[in-house]
Amino acid sequence: MADALKIGIAGLGTVGASLARILQQRHETLATTCGRAIEIRAVAARNRAKDRGVDLANIAWFEDAVSLASDADIDVFVELMGGAGDPAYSSVKAALQRGIHVVTANKALLAAHGIELAEIAEKHGALLNYEAAVAGGIPVIKVLRESMTGNTISRVYGIMNGTCNYILTKMEKEGLSFEECLKEAQRLGYAEADPAFDIEGNDTAHKLSILTSLAFGTAIAAEDIYLEGITNISIEDIHAAADLGYRIKLLGVAQRTESGIEQRVHPTMVPHDTVIAQVDGVTNAVAIESDILGELLMVGPGAGGDATASAVLGDIADIAKSRPGAQHVPAFGRPAKALLPYKRARMQSHEGGYFIRLKVVDRTGVFANIARHMAENDISLESIMQHSKQYADSAEPKTIILVTHATHEASVRKAIVSIKGEGYLVGEPQVIRIERPKAW
Amino acid sequence: MADALKIGIAGLGTVGASLARILQQRHETLATTCGRAIEIRAVAARNRAKDRGVDLANIAWFEDAVSLASDADIDVFVELMGGAGDPAYSSVKAALQRGIHVVTANKALLAAHGIELAEIAEKHGALLNYEAAVAGGIPVIKVLRESMTGNTISRVYGIMNGTCNYILTKMEKEGLSFEECLKEAQRLGYAEADPAFDIEGNDTAHKLSILTSLAFGTAIAAEDIYLEGITNISIEDIHAAADLGYRIKLLGVAQRTESGIEQRVHPTMVPHDTVIAQVDGVTNAVAIESDILGELLMVGPGAGGDATASAVLGDIADIAKSRPGAQHVPAFGRPAKALLPYKRARMQSHEGGYFIRLKVVDRTGVFANIARHMAENDISLESIMQHSKQYADSAEPKTIILVTHATHEASVRKAIVSIKGEGYLVGEPQVIRIERPKAW
Repeated sequence: MADALKIGIAGLGTVGASLARILQQRHETLATTCGRAIEIRAVAARNRAKDRGVDLANIAWFEDAVSLASDADIDVFVELMGGAGDPAYSSVKAALQRGIHVVTANKALLAAHGIELAEIAEKHGALLNYEAAVAGGIPVIKVLRESMTGNTISRVYGIMNGTCNYILTKMEKEGLSFEECLKEAQRLGYAEADPAFDIEGNDTAHKLSILTSLAFGTAIAAEDIYLEGITNISIEDIHAAADLGYRIKLLGVAQRTESGIEQRVHPTMVPHDTVIAQVDGVTNAVAIESDILGELLMVGPGAGGDATASAVLGDIADIAKSRPGAQHVPAFGRPAKALLPYKRARMQSHEGGYFIRLKVVDRTGVFANIARHMAENDISLESIMQHSKQYADSAEPKTIILVTHATHEASVRKAIVSIKGEGYLVGEPQVIRIERPKAW
Repeated sequence: MADALKIGIAGLGTVGASLARILQQRHETLATTCGRAIEIRAVAARNRAKDRGVDLANIAWFEDAVSLASDADIDVFVELMGGAGDPAYSSVKAALQRGIHVVTANKALLAAHGIELAEIAEKHGALLNYEAAVAGGIPVIKVLRESMTGNTISRVYGIMNGTCNYILTKMEKEGLSFEECLKEAQRLGYAEADPAFDIEGNDTAHKLSILTSLAFGTAIAAEDIYLEGITNISIEDIHAAADLGYRIKLLGVAQRTESGIEQRVHPTMVPHDTVIAQVDGVTNAVAIESDILGELLMVGPGAGGDATASAVLGDIADIAKSRPGAQHVPAFGRPAKALLPYKRARMQSHEGGYFIRLKVVDRTGVFANIARHMAENDISLESIMQHSKQYADSAEPKTIILVTHATHEASVRKAIVSIKGEGYLVGEPQVIRIERPKAW
């Protein structure tokens, strides 16, 4: 049997502690499967005294991740601290510069510095593996990077944030408001005390930027993602969606178009009889559409200590099964220098169906006027209706719901501006894009 | 850039021709992604004159696969002929004995000789890759063999035969008989002229035997699979299933139980609100349940020249990215010598719910008598009912449908024997097992 693979773990939170436990408990089985033992030789974490259910005797303890990455006698540096900045960035860079393989679950780091790190990895013959960074236990990185080699991909999309999906599912199932569901998610540990990063869509955007690079062979362009979170979704939207045969999901979508690559994260109406529509709670789902393989959908746990640790372990095992200097696996599918420039397709040119919900004062001719503005902007309507649950004789503002056929984002924005100018709107219009996944 | 990877293809049917075309058309992109060119150096097929849309100039032509595998100057032997016997068996063996990597889509070969071939591959430092052998474009082999390293798997199940799923879907959607749908499947090329291998469940069993080995680290035991095809499924069963909130699918299931590993292929009732129930037509789906990762579901194309070629290409690319002698990837997850013996759990001890449809002569007390036989065999009933679409006063035999709570197969068989002895049954009873997949 080959020499043991020596690993160092920076970060012993939920995922790190879970990984360390699994590596210790399944030491023999892993050695059989990988053809060599995997041994934890060094760790770095803040609090040495904390009981993590892991035996840390005979493991070198480092006060900081950068010195672990720079000095420890290891073959693989496992970064589980998170964050785009230091110490994650410096320590990963330090490890790669020594030719030490890196396994990380850090989507923020990759979204910000992925290509630079891939270049350093390639230069020094090190691998940069990051299965756990996107959609937790779903092996989408490996599938895009390895299984789909040679495919031309047209669209990748998915539910990649468990917090948002939990909130949207709960709003629909229990008829509760966004705020109530967010509080419940925080109580259950599904949402952070500061939930902005999840509910504003940034977390999904980081993950999407990585999938985009892998799928289209382009440089990462996280800052070019059109971003809309779910904070604006009301129970009225959820009900209207249900009435129309849709469910609302926060999707990340990357799509090849004639003008470039469209990357967008926004609440999306998906037909209720598609699989994506049925993915509930903290579960994640990713679909890939390509020309040779066809359409592939994967559903699984998007987060959680064990599921994430499983993905990290798969990455470590891949390194254990390879031999030093033996593999050509560029981090983003192609050598960093061969990645194509990212050409952004502007959101204005996005084409798709739209759900538009307007609150209007009850005045004769409003309905006709709205329809006229739509027609003038070449927007073909699938339906326009007054929301059925309102009494016709009430003096309250009326809700009007429009569903469009495929049209351009620019046209919808223009029509909304014109309608706003008419003075009969109450509050802001709600606009939700419609996406049509394969139904399977 | 490293030297080109030289491949030889045996079998230029739909998949082989598709693979050859893709390798030629995407030569540059593949070279960039893999860090070296992939070049077809030799082919073997029956008819040299046939136009396959592939440029075969400058490619060595072999009349038979064994001489290609034995003599050609290649790094990888791609076997796309099919069949458990020769020439597939001899040629794959000959290649591996020369230390030449093998990529195959041949589930029958692996089900019959997989472990022997894995041993030869390991002895000679060759890789044996077979992503295309199970569920076509769904990368379940890679996920089980690589991504899930370290997981203890409890159940693997799925829809792995497109022909059967097409027939069952069409029977339900169009209310046609099994025979009519089979004919349509043959007309569309979804079923062979001799469809027995698909509709009797053998094809699914071959695939399941491979997944079982990978999932549980055991030797392949294809002959130990409990097997029931779909030829016995009538439109009445489909309608009764729909009334009860189920759909009927041909599932392959491998499951860890207290008494061993249960492997079974049979028509199965699955609750209609699960994703598996919604997988229609020739699409495949595979679900894996494990202790660390949790539950993972993959849905995608199960067959077709391009989808299968994509899986073959992924296997070739993995070899291209590795370097000679550089990897430890035992074909079935563990070194062949370290595979555990397969301990069969007998079908008699299977535990689950059952759907039972009986035709009985219309006689007072039959209902009570059936219920008594069930009770005497400790079978707890979820429901027992006369099929609602019959008139109570008709002299025709009545249909009685029972749905049981979880019980043992042995009890159900005993109860059926007792009921048969009563003399009021018309024809054979229909028994369909119920499976409860995660709903996602």
